Amino acid sequence: MRHLLDTKTLTRDEALSILDVAEDMADTQQREVKKLPTLRGKTVVNLFFEDSTRTRISFEAAAKRLSADVINFSAKGSSVSKGESLQDTAQTLQAMGADAVVIRHGASGAPRTLATSGWITAGVVNAGDGTHEHPTQALLDAFTMRKRRFGADSRGRDLSGLRVTIVGDVLHSRVARSNVWLLDTLGAEVTLVAPPTLVPQDVSAWPARILYDLDDAIAHDPDALMVLRIQLERMNAAYFPTEREYSRRWGLDAGRLAALGPDSIVMHPGPMNRGLEISSEAADSPRSTVLDQVANGVSVRMAVLYLLLAGERAGEESEDES
Amino acid sequence: MRHLLDTKTLTRDEALSILDVAEDMADTQQREVKKLPTLRGKTVVNLFFEDSTRTRISFEAAAKRLSADVINFSAKGSSVSKGESLQDTAQTLQAMGADAVVIRHGASGAPRTLATSGWITAGVVNAGDGTHEHPTQALLDAFTMRKRRFGADSRGRDLSGLRVTIVGDVLHSRVARSNVWLLDTLGAEVTLVAPPTLVPQDVSAWPARILYDLDDAIAHDPDALMVLRIQLERMNAAYFPTEREYSRRWGLDAGRLAALGPDSIVMHPGPMNRGLEISSEAADSPRSTVLDQVANGVSVRMAVLYLLLAGERAGEESEDES
Amino acid sequence: MRHLLDTKTLTRDEALSILDVAEDMADTQQREVKKLPTLRGKTVVNLFFEDSTRTRISFEAAAKRLSADVINFSAKGSSVSKGESLQDTAQTLQAMGADAVVIRHGASGAPRTLATSGWITAGVVNAGDGTHEHPTQALLDAFTMRKRRFGADSRGRDLSGLRVTIVGDVLHSRVARSNVWLLDTLGAEVTLVAPPTLVPQDVSAWPARILYDLDDAIAHDPDALMVLRIQLERMNAAYFPTEREYSRRWGLDAGRLAALGPDSIVMHPGPMNRGLEISSEAADSPRSTVLDQVANGVSVRMAVLYLLLAGERAGEESEDES
Repeated sequence: MRHLLDTKTLTRDEALSILDVAEDMADTQQREVKKLPTLRGKTVVNLFFEDSTRTRISFEAAAKRLSADVINFSAKGSSVSKGESLQDTAQTLQAMGADAVVIRHGASGAPRTLATSGWITAGVVNAGDGTHEHPTQALLDAFTMRKRRFGADSRGRDLSGLRVTIVGDVLHSRVARSNVWLLDTLGAEVTLVAPPTLVPQDVSAWPARILYDLDDAIAHDPDALMVLRIQLERMNAAYFPTEREYSRRWGLDAGRLAALGPDSIVMHPGPMNRGLEISSEAADSPRSTVLDQVANGVSVRMAVLYLLLAGERAGEESEDES
Repeated sequence: MRHLLDTKTLTRDEALSILDVAEDMADTQQREVKKLPTLRGKTVVNLFFEDSTRTRISFEAAAKRLSADVINFSAKGSSVSKGESLQDTAQTLQAMGADAVVIRHGASGAPRTLATSGWITAGVVNAGDGTHEHPTQALLDAFTMRKRRFGADSRGRDLSGLRVTIVGDVLHSRVARSNVWLLDTLGAEVTLVAPPTLVPQDVSAWPARILYDLDDAIAHDPDALMVLRIQLERMNAAYFPTEREYSRRWGLDAGRLAALGPDSIVMHPGPMNRGLEISSEAADSPRSTVLDQVANGVSVRMAVLYLLLAGERAGEESEDES
Repeated sequence: MRHLLDTKTLTRDEALSILDVAEDMADTQQREVKKLPTLRGKTVVNLFFEDSTRTRISFEAAAKRLSADVINFSAKGSSVSKGESLQDTAQTLQAMGADAVVIRHGASGAPRTLATSGWITAGVVNAGDGTHEHPTQALLDAFTMRKRRFGADSRGRDLSGLRVTIVGDVLHSRVARSNVWLLDTLGAEVTLVAPPTLVPQDVSAWPARILYDLDDAIAHDPDALMVLRIQLERMNAAYFPTEREYSRRWGLDAGRLAALGPDSIVMHPGPMNRGLEISSEAADSPRSTVLDQVANGVSVRMAVLYLLLAGERAGEESEDES
């Protein structure tokens, strides 16, 4: 694997390969000494044009567990804010020895531009671009669903027949987009639930069913209900419901939690707005996979960095230093 | 030791154990290669809700000398500033693999809440909370006093009979609080000197004598005179003297320095406001332990992290990698 | 070597020693595992009073490749912004175990003050001070010119007879100053080209010829044409041309690029203002050494840190860990 830019163009085999390597990584995290020497001498740059402490830390932890050197590059106060182009920034980072660039950018498509322009040869990982995609989020979500369903017997399996409902501001959500494409590739059936003003215009081309009523969607008994984060800063926009209205109609409260089938799980990419899109009863219930998702995020990102940077030598160096 | 939350509930044995391990750590820092493999594969998160470059760097250096991975999490620009709760932040960090959380927080009691709520199992170190406590500061101060008094023969000893005077804004000082409790536990006699408006209302319950006149306190011949940092941003408050008034009455100037007994030491937690609470004559005199305190801070923090994260295996892995 | 403060007082032997060690470092960077154990257990502090992500990252990458621990200290939000003196900051960092302090400061001469005041014993590296010097930039530029001229046969050689033209805001440029002194020491012939208002008053004392016309300078057939970065924030100043005027008269556009001799190279310290002081044709042409300069910067900084921190043991420990 050269880059990870989206899930839309990711094949089933590629996706399963990432998930299976992530299983191996998760296993190593159970040991006393969690550090692997696999990427010693490799440099991973976190190139963040938008703040995202959570995602940045997850990639940083993943890289460090593989013994890579990590350099955090925040666009604030950098030459980027002095007007340097993405091309020059990326080429500079590669000239300093970056083997992989993990990029978060406000513009949809920036990671693909970086990877395909010929500017650099380093591996590129999309850590969220505009309203486009956030592929490692979808992969960690798929990993979590697969693990809940198959446990230790997950390797090699896809999500055929799994019913997944995603509720929230689908229009602006890169998490929703990445999940829809990946879930479809892995055989799941996806239902989207959103306020009518927050549904993308081209949604009919998505491999998903659209509903507008959360109770109706819950009545269809999803195996997983994924609650999207509400961006509070959008709440003033004309097309957006009020907080109270949103919470009442599209929030996962205690009543809706109780209406879910006995084995269905509740997911959220975090950080949660408790009391808005998700109640504390839901967030902290045994159904909730919120913290599993965070832990699995490190394993999935270890897998992605491993496949990008050591894939050709896979197996040779994954032994624990001891 | 599971957590380090304050000095008020720290027993004499626990305190001496930290100070004695810190002696071992200080010894390792004299060697050519200062790095110990003890915490390899452990992750220490610095979770700072308030800026404190000094304290953060000291913990970072301590963790790195023990080969831990360090992740710095500043609350600014993070999901915390987007309204995420302390619970969710802490659980997220632990799910990412944090073995210890070093927390600086503006609210008194936040570290205890984190440690005792059942939210996480990681070790918690209080790196300063509101006007409550700053226990590693008091421990490094005690280490410094013990070292000055007993030198290489410090191990196992407490501070019985040592006379310590603390001068400054006691009302707002977590450094003063942590020192008072620890010094009392270790057998020292504590005198507090402060402007009348800057004495806590409940001070009669503290194991310390109160004076209002610094010259009077110096006449009692303290073994250690600890000067607190003045927070300049408080200088506009109604209950606060002007800078000139403060400096004249409670500042350690050259005259007061000369009035100290021949063996008494001058301490300051830093950063110093030279010319305000302390003169350069005092700061730079051979009596001053200001830089010893900084160096000892790294040793004490190494000891605390060691006892939290490797305490059960103490002795097994403290050999130098070579 | 104890410190690296400027190029003005650097001898030819010292400069060649740095360049030759940098050749060794560059060779190690070609290997599969780029990490050297040379500075394991050493701590390098990046003490940046001004933002400079590029320079900071370059030093950070250099230190990490040598296995040093790196602590980044940005003056913002630190005790420095609370009024702590340079002396106290530096002594604090050393007390925490800093073996080398890499300092970027707005005041010309701050690194020399730090190194010669007796405050600290740690090695000091000037990473840019006011309008004074930026010695590692000049060293990486010299390394780049030498490499282009002599290739694998560079070691031990100086730049005798090389004609170097530097164009731009010489008045405010520490890059220009450091280059002029070093190039003169290494035997190169330097020509400066600048708008008349942007020439230093004492330039007649510099070992360089002054011209005001870039086309004239190009007609003299330089071996290297170094384009300085324009600080856009100065563009409002009375003595400064407009952007359009500057670009037209002192910018390296396609026409001037074509007028350069067949073997001459184009240099820029980055980040570039494409379309202002340099056109994309020039920046991306095969003549351009811009990315070589960045890559060589890591090698040169590895060499400097090595000579400061392990110089006495040179050769003993430079083997790759394997």
